[in-house]
Amino acid sequence: MQEHHVVGIGNAIVDILGRCDDAFLAKHGCTKGSMQLVDAAAISRLYDAMGPGVEISGGSVANTVAGVASLGGKAGFIGKTASDQFGQVFGHDIRATGVTFATAPAGPGSEPTGRCLVLVTPDGQRTMSTFLGVSPELGDGEVDADLIASARIVYLEGYLFDRPQAKAAFRRAADIAVKAGRHVALSLSDAFCVDRHRAEFLDLIRSRVDILFANEAEVTSLYQTKSFDEAARRTRADTKLAALTRSEKGSVILSDGKSVVVPPEPVAKVVDTTGAGDLYAAGFLYGVASGRDLETAGRLGSLAAAEIISHIGARPETRLQDLARAKGLLTS
Amino acid sequence: MQEHHVVGIGNAIVDILGRCDDAFLAKHGCTKGSMQLVDAAAISRLYDAMGPGVEISGGSVANTVAGVASLGGKAGFIGKTASDQFGQVFGHDIRATGVTFATAPAGPGSEPTGRCLVLVTPDGQRTMSTFLGVSPELGDGEVDADLIASARIVYLEGYLFDRPQAKAAFRRAADIAVKAGRHVALSLSDAFCVDRHRAEFLDLIRSRVDILFANEAEVTSLYQTKSFDEAARRTRADTKLAALTRSEKGSVILSDGKSVVVPPEPVAKVVDTTGAGDLYAAGFLYGVASGRDLETAGRLGSLAAAEIISHIGARPETRLQDLARAKGLLTS
Repeated sequence: MQEHHVVGIGNAIVDILGRCDDAFLAKHGCTKGSMQLVDAAAISRLYDAMGPGVEISGGSVANTVAGVASLGGKAGFIGKTASDQFGQVFGHDIRATGVTFATAPAGPGSEPTGRCLVLVTPDGQRTMSTFLGVSPELGDGEVDADLIASARIVYLEGYLFDRPQAKAAFRRAADIAVKAGRHVALSLSDAFCVDRHRAEFLDLIRSRVDILFANEAEVTSLYQTKSFDEAARRTRADTKLAALTRSEKGSVILSDGKSVVVPPEPVAKVVDTTGAGDLYAAGFLYGVASGRDLETAGRLGSLAAAEIISHIGARPETRLQDLARAKGLLTS
Repeated sequence: MQEHHVVGIGNAIVDILGRCDDAFLAKHGCTKGSMQLVDAAAISRLYDAMGPGVEISGGSVANTVAGVASLGGKAGFIGKTASDQFGQVFGHDIRATGVTFATAPAGPGSEPTGRCLVLVTPDGQRTMSTFLGVSPELGDGEVDADLIASARIVYLEGYLFDRPQAKAAFRRAADIAVKAGRHVALSLSDAFCVDRHRAEFLDLIRSRVDILFANEAEVTSLYQTKSFDEAARRTRADTKLAALTRSEKGSVILSDGKSVVVPPEPVAKVVDTTGAGDLYAAGFLYGVASGRDLETAGRLGSLAAAEIISHIGARPETRLQDLARAKGLLTS
């Protein structure tokens, strides 16, 4: 099989984006900036209450691999959809970006394709309510060993830990990657997700993970500290390579006792922060997988994140490779 | 039943918007700026070939009634969806704008909800390929007589003429409206649609239609002339009230021997022209139905069209009532 820069495993999700104000979030018990898991009945109630929506393929790791492809990298994705219209949309969009995606959709009668209501407030922040649908039914038998082994980096999302079957798939993918001498990268996904799985995440990070991604809320939740510096110090002790993102403060890359502070890429107007972390990971992973230095990798991350927050939706609208070339971050 | 300013009958469609270049259109036999009807196999082929998409509720008349609601008007819609995810999306979005929509979706096993691939070229022009799906199966028994009779204006799209059953529903709605002493408005929809139904459209316009909407391509196709002035002269002879739109030249309103030339509303950047005509109709119809003079109605049309072409998708992103108040076009 052709070599891939990055192969990701994650929930296959279609985002439904709508606008709301802070009062709407409060009324419906949503914590601003976070992701909550909800069941079919709860997502129906919330959907009925919200305004008109726009549907765009999403899913954290799926957004990342789409970003890698947009940068000119070879990327693959493993994730479960249903045989319904949202499943067709998800499969079409990820293949149309050039990503290798061959996971078979579930048969008729399955749970529907997962969806996420993304409510964007006037400040550009997004608050997410996810109904996973069929997504966690990804069997560990569906983790394509050849595809995993073809990847320089295997990228996994913490969200997979929210359901036992997806967690098994996650572990199987990590096993294959380690056995094939590949790097394993992990995103902590969300501060509440960290809260649900802290002990297992710490164990994984210390034993199996080569590259860790976390934002400030996630990493401080992981180490149960209010101090970012304290959390960064402990991350350094636990990881070989970590990229900690800090929104408008940019990111800090920790590696072998070294810290690289990467400034954010300026953005004229923040329209929707959905996917900022996912696209930062895309730039960073592609940079590392293609042999760039850590600062360049971080700047590719900042650039990809800047593109995604300047419009609605978590998939690039402009070819990231062109943007990166214009900035002199990619020359070939 | 509560009185409505406008009740529309049209195809219930979910738009799938993607970007492409002119070469892609040529390769796939699409005529730039037009709408072509395609079958399930053809839309699948085109979808497979195009890039990633964004799904947004659409449908010409549906866009118009959503615009009327956004201007603060009372609007209703009659149109057929399937019991599938796109049908849920369509129903949610139109109700979420405040439009009365009670047409029952078709049962399981029906054709799917109609969809339209909207390909936007770098110049902002849109080229559409529509698979009508279940939409033309709107039965004339589903044309809610009370809802029609509650409308000051009943708005119908020429596209309904493309299928016999939808055409029957169109005629029944016009009959009810005439009997109830209501106004009937018609959009010619598309120059090729005019070509398919010229004689019937002319007959309708002369006998049943009170307000006609057409763009330059449609009205010149209707009268088979290359001259807009000639087409306008003949429109004036055939209609009581007509609004002819001319893209960046604005619009011309013809009524009782009078012509009102309405300038376009300036737009910083044309992103996507999808829905420009639909939203012009929204502003004009709401203006007329709420008793404004023709110039104000035309300016409301220009304002609504300007909002829609400044972003992707054919449904307003900003509340049109607020924009119109800021311009002094609506005061109450």
